[in-house]
Amino acid sequence: MKLYTYFRSSAAFRVRIALNLKGLAYEPVFVHLAKGEHRRPEYASVNPQALVPTLVLDDGTRLNQSLAIIEYLDDAVPQKPLVPKDRLARARVRSLSYLVASEIHPLNNLRTLQHLKRALGQSEEQIATWYRHWIADGLAKLEAELADNKGKFCHGDAPTMADCCLVPQIFNARRYDSDLAPYPATMRVFDACMKLEAFDRAQPAKQPDAE
Amino acid sequence: MKLYTYFRSSAAFRVRIALNLKGLAYEPVFVHLAKGEHRRPEYASVNPQALVPTLVLDDGTRLNQSLAIIEYLDDAVPQKPLVPKDRLARARVRSLSYLVASEIHPLNNLRTLQHLKRALGQSEEQIATWYRHWIADGLAKLEAELADNKGKFCHGDAPTMADCCLVPQIFNARRYDSDLAPYPATMRVFDACMKLEAFDRAQPAKQPDAE
Repeated sequence: MKLYTYFRSSAAFRVRIALNLKGLAYEPVFVHLAKGEHRRPEYASVNPQALVPTLVLDDGTRLNQSLAIIEYLDDAVPQKPLVPKDRLARARVRSLSYLVASEIHPLNNLRTLQHLKRALGQSEEQIATWYRHWIADGLAKLEAELADNKGKFCHGDAPTMADCCLVPQIFNARRYDSDLAPYPATMRVFDACMKLEAFDRAQPAKQPDAE
Repeated sequence: MKLYTYFRSSAAFRVRIALNLKGLAYEPVFVHLAKGEHRRPEYASVNPQALVPTLVLDDGTRLNQSLAIIEYLDDAVPQKPLVPKDRLARARVRSLSYLVASEIHPLNNLRTLQHLKRALGQSEEQIATWYRHWIADGLAKLEAELADNKGKFCHGDAPTMADCCLVPQIFNARRYDSDLAPYPATMRVFDACMKLEAFDRAQPAKQPDAE
Protein backbone atom coordinates (compact mmCIF):
# COMPACT_ATOMS: atom_id res chain seq x y z
CA MET A 1 0.00 0.00 0.00
CA LYS A 2 0.99 3.59 -0.62
CA LEU A 3 -0.07 6.46 1.62
CA TYR A 4 -0.03 10.01 0.31
CA THR A 5 0.80 11.91 3.46
CA TYR A 6 2.14 15.15 4.91
CA PHE A 7 3.85 15.10 8.28
CA ARG A 8 1.70 17.87 9.74
CA SER A 9 -1.68 16.79 8.31
CA SER A 10 -3.96 15.65 11.14
CA ALA A 11 -5.99 13.57 8.75
CA ALA A 12 -2.89 11.74 7.50
CA PHE A 13 -1.72 11.36 11.11
CA ARG A 14 -5.01 9.57 11.97
CA VAL A 15 -4.46 7.07 9.17
CA ARG A 16 -0.79 6.56 10.05
CA ILE A 17 -1.90 5.62 13.58
CA ALA A 18 -4.57 3.24 12.26
CA LEU A 19 -2.12 1.52 9.90
CA ASN A 20 0.36 1.12 12.75
CA LEU A 21 -2.32 -0.24 15.11
CA LYS A 22 -3.30 -2.80 12.48
CA GLY A 23 0.35 -3.68 11.87
CA LEU A 24 0.11 -2.78 8.19
CA ALA A 25 3.21 -1.57 6.35
CA TYR A 26 2.92 1.21 3.78
CA GLU A 27 5.10 3.22 1.46
CA PRO A 28 4.73 6.94 2.15
CA VAL A 29 4.43 9.42 -0.71
CA PHE A 30 4.93 12.96 0.48
CA VAL A 31 2.60 15.79 -0.54
CA HIS A 32 3.79 19.14 0.73
CA LEU A 33 0.56 20.90 1.67
CA ALA A 34 2.19 24.18 2.65
CA LYS A 35 3.72 24.35 -0.85
CA GLY A 36 0.33 23.54 -2.40
CA GLU A 37 1.44 20.23 -3.92
CA HIS A 38 -2.05 18.80 -3.30
CA ARG A 39 -3.46 21.30 -5.79
CA ARG A 40 -1.25 20.15 -8.68
CA PRO A 41 -3.08 18.54 -11.62
CA GLU A 42 -1.15 15.27 -11.26
CA TYR A 43 -2.50 14.88 -7.71
CA ALA A 44 -6.09 15.48 -8.89
CA SER A 45 -5.88 12.14 -10.69
CA VAL A 46 -4.85 10.52 -7.38
CA ASN A 47 -7.49 12.26 -5.27
CA PRO A 48 -10.34 14.25 -6.86
CA GLN A 49 -10.83 16.00 -3.51
CA ALA A 50 -7.23 17.35 -3.70
CA LEU A 51 -6.78 16.48 -0.03
CA VAL A 52 -4.38 14.36 2.00
CA PRO A 53 -4.39 11.45 2.85
CA THR A 54 -4.98 9.06 -0.03
CA LEU A 55 -4.42 5.34 0.49
CA VAL A 56 -3.59 3.35 -2.63
CA LEU A 57 -4.22 -0.37 -2.28
CA ASP A 58 -1.94 -2.93 -3.92
CA ASP A 59 -4.41 -3.34 -6.80
CA GLY A 60 -4.32 0.41 -7.46
CA THR A 61 -7.66 1.27 -5.83
CA ARG A 62 -7.54 4.71 -4.27
CA LEU A 63 -9.32 5.59 -1.04
CA ASN A 64 -9.65 9.04 0.46
CA GLN A 65 -11.05 10.81 3.53
CA SER A 66 -9.21 9.67 6.64
CA LEU A 67 -12.19 8.17 8.51
CA ALA A 68 -13.43 6.33 5.41
CA ILE A 69 -9.93 4.85 5.09
CA ILE A 70 -9.87 3.83 8.76
CA GLU A 71 -13.31 2.19 8.49
CA TYR A 72 -12.10 0.40 5.33
CA LEU A 73 -9.01 -0.90 7.12
CA ASP A 74 -11.27 -2.11 9.91
CA ASP A 75 -13.59 -3.85 7.44
CA ALA A 76 -10.60 -5.44 5.66
CA VAL A 77 -8.55 -6.41 8.74
CA PRO A 78 -10.96 -7.24 11.56
CA GLN A 79 -8.22 -8.04 14.15
CA LYS A 80 -7.79 -5.29 16.76
CA PRO A 81 -11.04 -3.53 15.83
CA LEU A 82 -10.88 0.25 15.57
CA VAL A 83 -14.67 0.42 15.47
CA PRO A 84 -16.22 -1.95 18.05
CA LYS A 85 -18.67 -4.65 17.01
CA ASP A 86 -21.48 -3.61 19.38
CA ARG A 87 -23.97 -1.30 17.68
CA LEU A 88 -24.14 1.30 20.44
CA ALA A 89 -20.39 1.22 21.00
CA ARG A 90 -19.90 1.79 17.27
CA ALA A 91 -22.18 4.83 17.42
CA ARG A 92 -20.24 6.23 20.36
CA VAL A 93 -16.80 5.73 18.81
CA ARG A 94 -18.02 7.30 15.58
CA SER A 95 -19.60 10.21 17.41
CA LEU A 96 -16.36 11.02 19.24
CA SER A 97 -14.43 10.69 15.99
CA TYR A 98 -16.77 13.04 14.13
CA LEU A 99 -16.69 15.50 17.01
CA VAL A 100 -12.99 15.97 16.31
CA ALA A 101 -13.09 15.51 12.54
CA SER A 102 -16.16 17.64 11.83
CA GLU A 103 -16.48 20.10 14.70
CA ILE A 104 -12.87 21.08 15.46
CA HIS A 105 -10.41 20.20 12.74
CA PRO A 106 -12.10 21.77 9.66
CA LEU A 107 -12.07 25.17 11.33
CA ASN A 108 -8.34 24.94 11.98
CA ASN A 109 -6.88 23.17 8.98
CA LEU A 110 -4.32 24.77 6.70
CA ARG A 111 -6.64 25.97 3.97
CA THR A 112 -8.99 27.60 6.47
CA LEU A 113 -6.10 29.46 8.12
CA GLN A 114 -4.75 30.49 4.70
CA HIS A 115 -8.19 31.83 3.77
CA LEU A 116 -8.42 33.81 7.02
CA LYS A 117 -5.08 35.39 6.15
CA ARG A 118 -5.47 35.95 2.41
CA ALA A 119 -9.17 36.72 2.04
CA LEU A 120 -10.02 38.17 5.46
CA GLY A 121 -6.67 39.85 6.11
CA GLN A 122 -6.35 38.35 9.59
CA SER A 123 -3.00 38.73 11.36
CA GLU A 124 -0.98 35.81 12.71
CA GLU A 125 -2.17 36.73 16.19
CA GLN A 126 -5.83 36.90 15.13
CA ILE A 127 -5.46 33.52 13.43
CA ALA A 128 -3.96 32.01 16.58
CA THR A 129 -6.91 33.38 18.57
CA TRP A 130 -9.34 31.83 16.07
CA TYR A 131 -7.45 28.53 16.32
CA ARG A 132 -7.55 28.41 20.09
CA HIS A 133 -11.23 29.41 20.14
CA TRP A 134 -12.24 26.30 18.19
CA ILE A 135 -9.87 24.08 20.14
CA ALA A 136 -11.46 25.29 23.39
CA ASP A 137 -14.99 24.97 22.00
CA GLY A 138 -14.41 21.45 20.69
CA LEU A 139 -12.31 20.06 23.51
CA ALA A 140 -14.91 21.23 26.05
CA LYS A 141 -17.44 19.09 24.17
CA LEU A 142 -15.02 16.15 24.07
CA GLU A 143 -14.26 16.53 27.77
CA ALA A 144 -18.01 16.50 28.53
CA GLU A 145 -18.31 13.27 26.55
CA LEU A 146 -15.35 11.69 28.35
CA ALA A 147 -16.23 12.95 31.84
CA ASP A 148 -17.51 9.55 33.03
CA ASN A 149 -14.99 7.59 31.01
CA LYS A 150 -13.98 4.45 32.86
CA GLY A 151 -11.70 3.09 30.16
CA LYS A 152 -8.07 3.79 29.43
CA PHE A 153 -8.92 5.08 25.96
CA CYS A 154 -11.87 7.00 24.48
CA HIS A 155 -13.94 3.86 24.53
CA GLY A 156 -12.77 0.95 26.65
CA ASP A 157 -9.28 -0.37 27.21
CA ALA A 158 -8.13 -0.68 23.62
CA PRO A 159 -7.56 2.15 21.15
CA THR A 160 -10.27 2.90 18.59
CA MET A 161 -10.86 5.28 15.70
CA ALA A 162 -11.80 7.94 18.26
CA ASP A 163 -8.27 7.81 19.70
CA CYS A 164 -6.85 8.07 16.18
CA CYS A 165 -8.72 11.40 15.97
CA LEU A 166 -8.07 12.69 19.49
CA VAL A 167 -4.28 12.42 19.43
CA PRO A 168 -3.57 14.54 16.31
CA GLN A 169 -6.01 17.14 17.63
CA ILE A 170 -4.01 17.46 20.86
CA PHE A 171 -0.79 17.81 18.87
CA ASN A 172 -2.43 20.72 17.03
CA ALA A 173 -3.65 22.27 20.27
CA ARG A 174 -0.14 22.18 21.71
CA ARG A 175 1.35 23.64 18.55
CA TYR A 176 -0.86 26.69 19.07
CA ASP A 177 -0.20 26.81 22.83
CA SER A 178 -3.79 26.05 23.80
CA ASP A 179 -4.40 25.67 27.52
CA LEU A 180 -5.16 21.97 28.02
CA ALA A 181 -5.64 22.07 31.79
CA PRO A 182 -9.46 22.18 31.52
CA TYR A 183 -9.53 18.77 29.81
CA PRO A 184 -8.10 16.21 32.26
CA ALA A 185 -10.17 13.25 31.01
CA THR A 186 -9.14 14.00 27.43
CA MET A 187 -5.48 14.36 28.38
CA ARG A 188 -5.55 11.07 30.34
CA VAL A 189 -6.57 9.34 27.12
CA PHE A 190 -3.93 11.24 25.14
CA ASP A 191 -1.21 10.17 27.58
CA ALA A 192 -2.34 6.54 27.43
CA CYS A 193 -2.24 6.63 23.63
CA MET A 194 1.22 8.17 23.46
CA LYS A 195 2.62 5.28 25.47
CA LEU A 196 1.82 3.04 22.51
CA GLU A 197 4.41 2.71 19.77
CA ALA A 198 1.69 2.88 17.08
CA PHE A 199 0.78 6.43 18.12
CA ASP A 200 4.29 7.59 18.90
CA ARG A 201 5.73 6.47 15.58
CA ALA A 202 2.93 8.24 13.65
CA GLN A 203 3.59 11.70 15.09
CA PRO A 204 4.61 14.55 12.80
CA ALA A 205 8.17 14.99 14.11
CA LYS A 206 8.96 11.33 13.41
CA GLN A 207 7.95 11.41 9.74
CA PRO A 208 10.62 11.41 7.02
CA ASP A 209 9.16 14.64 5.56
CA ALA A 210 9.18 16.49 8.92
CA GLU A 211 10.76 19.93 8.83
CA MET B 1 -37.85 7.40 19.10
CA LYS B 2 -37.40 11.10 19.72
CA LEU B 3 -35.34 13.37 17.49
CA TYR B 4 -34.05 16.66 18.81
CA THR B 5 -34.09 18.75 15.67
CA TYR B 6 -34.10 22.25 14.23
CA PHE B 7 -35.71 22.86 10.87
CA ARG B 8 -32.67 24.62 9.41
CA SER B 9 -29.96 22.34 10.83
CA SER B 10 -28.27 20.43 8.00
CA ALA B 11 -27.17 17.72 10.37
CA ALA B 12 -30.75 17.20 11.62
CA PHE B 13 -31.99 17.30 8.01
CA ARG B 14 -29.60 14.41 7.15
CA VAL B 15 -31.05 12.29 9.96
CA ARG B 16 -34.65 13.20 9.06
CA ILE B 17 -33.97 11.92 5.53
CA ALA B 18 -32.41 8.71 6.84
CA LEU B 19 -35.30 8.04 9.20
CA ASN B 20 -37.76 8.61 6.35
CA LEU B 21 -35.79 6.34 3.99
CA LYS B 22 -35.84 3.60 6.62
CA GLY B 23 -39.54 4.16 7.21
CA LEU B 24 -38.99 4.90 10.90
CA ALA B 25 -41.41 7.18 12.73
CA TYR B 26 -40.09 9.64 15.31
CA GLU B 27 -41.35 12.31 17.64
CA PRO B 28 -39.61 15.63 16.97
CA VAL B 29 -38.39 17.79 19.84
CA PHE B 30 -37.52 21.28 18.66
CA VAL B 31 -34.30 23.00 19.69
CA HIS B 32 -34.12 26.57 18.41
CA LEU B 33 -30.46 26.97 17.47
CA ALA B 34 -30.72 30.63 16.49
CA LYS B 35 -32.08 31.35 19.99
CA GLY B 36 -29.25 29.32 21.54
CA GLU B 37 -31.52 26.68 23.07
CA HIS B 38 -28.83 24.02 22.43
CA ARG B 39 -26.57 25.81 24.93
CA ARG B 40 -29.07 25.59 27.80
CA PRO B 41 -27.98 23.41 30.75
CA GLU B 42 -30.99 21.11 30.38
CA TYR B 43 -29.90 20.24 26.84
CA ALA B 44 -26.35 19.42 28.01
CA SER B 45 -27.81 16.40 29.81
CA VAL B 46 -29.40 15.30 26.53
CA ASN B 47 -26.29 15.90 24.39
CA PRO B 48 -22.89 16.67 25.98
CA GLN B 49 -21.77 18.11 22.65
CA ALA B 50 -24.58 20.71 22.83
CA LEU B 51 -25.35 20.10 19.16
CA VAL B 52 -28.37 19.05 17.14
CA PRO B 53 -29.46 16.36 16.28
CA THR B 54 -29.82 13.91 19.15
CA LEU B 55 -31.73 10.68 18.61
CA VAL B 56 -33.27 9.13 21.74
CA LEU B 57 -34.07 5.45 21.37
CA ASP B 58 -37.16 3.93 22.99
CA ASP B 59 -35.02 2.61 25.88
CA GLY B 60 -33.70 6.12 26.55
CA THR B 61 -30.27 5.67 24.92
CA ARG B 62 -29.10 8.90 23.36
CA LEU B 63 -27.11 9.06 20.14
CA ASN B 64 -25.50 12.12 18.65
CA GLN B 65 -23.53 13.25 15.59
CA SER B 66 -25.66 12.88 12.47
CA LEU B 67 -23.48 10.38 10.61
CA ALA B 68 -23.02 8.21 13.69
CA ILE B 69 -26.82 8.16 14.01
CA ILE B 70 -27.27 7.23 10.34
CA GLU B 71 -24.69 4.42 10.61
CA TYR B 72 -26.49 3.22 13.75
CA LEU B 73 -29.84 3.19 11.96
CA ASP B 74 -28.22 1.22 9.16
CA ASP B 75 -26.72 -1.28 11.62
CA ALA B 76 -30.08 -1.62 13.41
CA VAL B 77 -32.35 -1.74 10.33
CA PRO B 78 -30.43 -3.40 7.50
CA GLN B 79 -33.26 -3.10 4.93
CA LYS B 80 -32.63 -0.41 2.31
CA PRO B 81 -28.94 0.01 3.23
CA LEU B 82 -27.68 3.57 3.51
CA VAL B 83 -24.10 2.29 3.60
CA PRO B 84 -23.58 -0.48 1.00
CA LYS B 85 -22.32 -3.90 2.04
CA ASP B 86 -19.33 -4.01 -0.33
CA ARG B 87 -16.15 -2.82 1.38
CA LEU B 88 -14.98 -0.47 -1.36
CA ALA B 89 -18.48 0.88 -1.92
CA ARG B 90 -18.73 1.59 1.81
CA ALA B 91 -15.48 3.54 1.66
CA ARG B 92 -16.74 5.57 -1.27
CA VAL B 93 -20.12 6.42 0.29
CA ARG B 94 -18.41 7.40 3.52
CA SER B 95 -15.83 9.51 1.70
CA LEU B 96 -18.53 11.48 -0.12
CA SER B 97 -20.46 11.89 3.14
CA TYR B 98 -17.40 13.18 5.01
CA LEU B 99 -16.53 15.49 2.12
CA VAL B 100 -19.79 17.32 2.83
CA ALA B 101 -19.87 16.86 6.60
CA SER B 102 -16.22 17.66 7.32
CA GLU B 103 -14.99 19.83 4.44
CA ILE B 104 -17.96 22.09 3.69
CA HIS B 105 -20.57 22.20 6.41
CA PRO B 106 -18.41 23.01 9.50
CA LEU B 107 -17.16 26.18 7.83
CA ASN B 108 -20.70 27.36 7.19
CA ASN B 109 -22.72 26.29 10.17
CA LEU B 110 -24.48 28.72 12.46
CA ARG B 111 -21.87 28.93 15.20
CA THR B 112 -19.08 29.56 12.68
CA LEU B 113 -21.06 32.38 11.06
CA GLN B 114 -21.93 33.84 14.47
CA HIS B 115 -18.24 33.78 15.40
CA LEU B 116 -17.27 35.54 12.16
CA LYS B 117 -19.77 38.25 13.03
CA ARG B 118 -19.20 38.61 16.77
CA ALA B 119 -15.47 37.93 17.14
CA LEU B 120 -14.15 38.96 13.73
CA GLY B 121 -16.62 41.79 13.07
CA GLN B 122 -17.48 40.53 9.59
CA SER B 123 -20.45 42.16 7.85
CA GLU B 124 -23.43 40.22 6.47
CA GLU B 125 -21.97 40.63 2.98
CA GLN B 126 -18.52 39.40 4.04
CA ILE B 127 -20.13 36.43 5.74
CA ALA B 128 -22.09 35.59 2.60
CA THR B 129 -18.84 35.74 0.60
CA TRP B 130 -17.17 33.38 3.09
CA TYR B 131 -20.16 31.04 2.85
CA ARG B 132 -20.12 30.91 -0.94
CA HIS B 133 -16.33 30.45 -0.98
CA TRP B 134 -16.58 27.19 0.96
CA ILE B 135 -19.61 26.02 -1.00
CA ALA B 136 -17.67 26.55 -4.24
CA ASP B 137 -14.53 24.92 -2.85
CA GLY B 138 -16.39 21.87 -1.54
CA LEU B 139 -18.87 21.40 -4.37
CA ALA B 140 -16.01 21.50 -6.90
CA LYS B 141 -14.48 18.55 -5.03
CA LEU B 142 -17.83 16.74 -4.93
CA GLU B 143 -18.39 17.40 -8.63
CA ALA B 144 -14.94 15.95 -9.41
CA GLU B 145 -15.88 12.83 -7.42
CA LEU B 146 -19.22 12.50 -9.23
CA ALA B 147 -17.92 13.35 -12.72
CA ASP B 148 -18.02 9.73 -13.94
CA ASN B 149 -21.09 8.85 -11.92
CA LYS B 150 -23.23 6.34 -13.80
CA GLY B 151 -25.83 5.94 -11.07
CA LYS B 152 -28.95 7.93 -10.33
CA PHE B 153 -27.66 8.80 -6.86
CA CYS B 154 -24.20 9.46 -5.39
CA HIS B 155 -23.47 5.76 -5.44
CA GLY B 156 -25.65 3.53 -7.57
CA ASP B 157 -29.39 3.63 -8.14
CA ALA B 158 -30.58 3.77 -4.54
CA PRO B 159 -30.04 6.59 -2.06
CA THR B 160 -27.24 6.25 0.49
CA MET B 161 -25.80 8.23 3.40
CA ALA B 162 -23.92 10.35 0.84
CA ASP B 163 -27.23 11.56 -0.58
CA CYS B 164 -28.46 12.32 2.95
CA CYS B 165 -25.47 14.71 3.15
CA LEU B 166 -25.59 16.15 -0.36
CA VAL B 167 -29.20 17.33 -0.29
CA PRO B 168 -29.05 19.56 2.83
CA GLN B 169 -25.80 21.06 1.52
CA ILE B 170 -27.53 22.11 -1.72
CA PHE B 171 -30.39 23.64 0.28
CA ASN B 172 -27.76 25.72 2.12
CA ALA B 173 -26.05 26.70 -1.12
CA ARG B 174 -29.33 27.94 -2.55
CA ARG B 175 -30.15 29.86 0.60
CA TYR B 176 -26.95 31.84 0.09
CA ASP B 177 -27.53 32.21 -3.68
CA SER B 178 -24.49 30.15 -4.65
CA ASP B 179 -24.09 29.58 -8.37
CA LEU B 180 -24.79 25.88 -8.88
CA ALA B 181 -24.29 25.80 -12.66
CA PRO B 182 -20.70 24.46 -12.38
CA TYR B 183 -21.94 21.27 -10.67
CA PRO B 184 -24.23 19.44 -13.13
CA ALA B 185 -23.42 15.92 -11.89
CA THR B 186 -24.10 16.99 -8.30
CA MET B 187 -27.36 18.69 -9.26
CA ARG B 188 -28.53 15.63 -11.22
CA VAL B 189 -28.24 13.64 -8.00
CA PHE B 190 -29.96 16.38 -6.02
CA ASP B 191 -32.88 16.43 -8.46
CA ALA B 192 -33.20 12.64 -8.32
CA CYS B 193 -33.27 12.76 -4.52
CA MET B 194 -35.89 15.48 -4.35
CA LYS B 195 -38.29 13.34 -6.37
CA LEU B 196 -38.38 10.96 -3.41
CA GLU B 197 -40.90 11.63 -0.67
CA ALA B 198 -38.32 10.75 2.02
CA PHE B 199 -36.14 13.69 1.00
CA ASP B 200 -38.95 16.11 0.21
CA ARG B 201 -40.71 15.59 3.55
CA ALA B 202 -37.45 16.17 5.48
CA GLN B 203 -36.76 19.62 4.03
CA PRO B 204 -36.62 22.64 6.34
CA ALA B 205 -39.76 24.39 5.02
CA LYS B 206 -41.88 21.30 5.72
CA GLN B 207 -40.90 20.99 9.40
CA PRO B 208 -43.38 21.99 12.11
CA ASP B 209 -40.80 24.43 13.58
CA ALA B 210 -40.12 26.16 10.22
CA GLU B 211 -40.28 29.94 10.30
